[in-house]
Amino acid sequence: MNEDVLKSIERADQLIKEERFDELMEEYTDDAVLVIAPPLKLAKGKEEIKSAFVKIAKYFNNSLKPAQGKMVMLETGDTILVLSQTFLTSDNQDSVECSMERRATYIYRLCHDGKWRCAIDNSYGSTLLD
Amino acid sequence: MNEDVLKSIERADQLIKEERFDELMEEYTDDAVLVIAPPLKLAKGKEEIKSAFVKIAKYFNNSLKPAQGKMVMLETGDTILVLSQTFLTSDNQDSVECSMERRATYIYRLCHDGKWRCAIDNSYGSTLLD
Repeated sequence: MNEDVLKSIERADQLIKEERFDELMEEYTDDAVLVIAPPLKLAKGKEEIKSAFVKIAKYFNNSLKPAQGKMVMLETGDTILVLSQTFLTSDNQDSVECSMERRATYIYRLCHDGKWRCAIDNSYGSTLLD
Repeated sequence: MNEDVLKSIERADQLIKEERFDELMEEYTDDAVLVIAPPLKLAKGKEEIKSAFVKIAKYFNNSLKPAQGKMVMLETGDTILVLSQTFLTSDNQDSVECSMERRATYIYRLCHDGKWRCAIDNSYGSTLLD
């Protein structure tokens, strides 16, 4: 497990929970891709990704709390594939807490400033093939 | 879909079927990682990967025929995440043809010579989390 990538993922989860999306963008590469919805609704680049997170927060009644469970990392040079059990907890419109589990696929890249950032954020994992 | 990556995957499937492992190594980056078996039995670099493929071929009674079904690619710059339905067909010890289906996760990188090569080859996909 790459500790820097693990910390970036934990920080991202915390920043999403606190809706601090400007700071969240620091965890993404400039040309990162976020899968918004299956099969292939994508956000590309920080501007689109930030805008997508604002909409995602609203969709989850501004109560989204992401967290990771089991995690596997495969590392080669400046690239890491992360497979992660992801829990998305939020309140529904009746303020009842709901939780869903996904198996996410992330790609992290080591950037020129020495920081690992998310280049591909696919919380849907292989379910994009469904 | 990136056509060069698609062709590389098709070529790799053909070369595995024909057990032409020296040529197969052309489809991998120098520091590529292959998942041999869950949870994390890995081959790193062309020498280990080639040796692993010789053993895999033997394990499948020298009759392995890999093929891809549904496929999704997520591309950012010089990196592509490939999610692919993978079919592994082979003859068992009684020469009866058997087939298994997996959901593979590959990372392809654009190399300095302009060729896309596989940097992470994980035919087990998210089942590494099981």
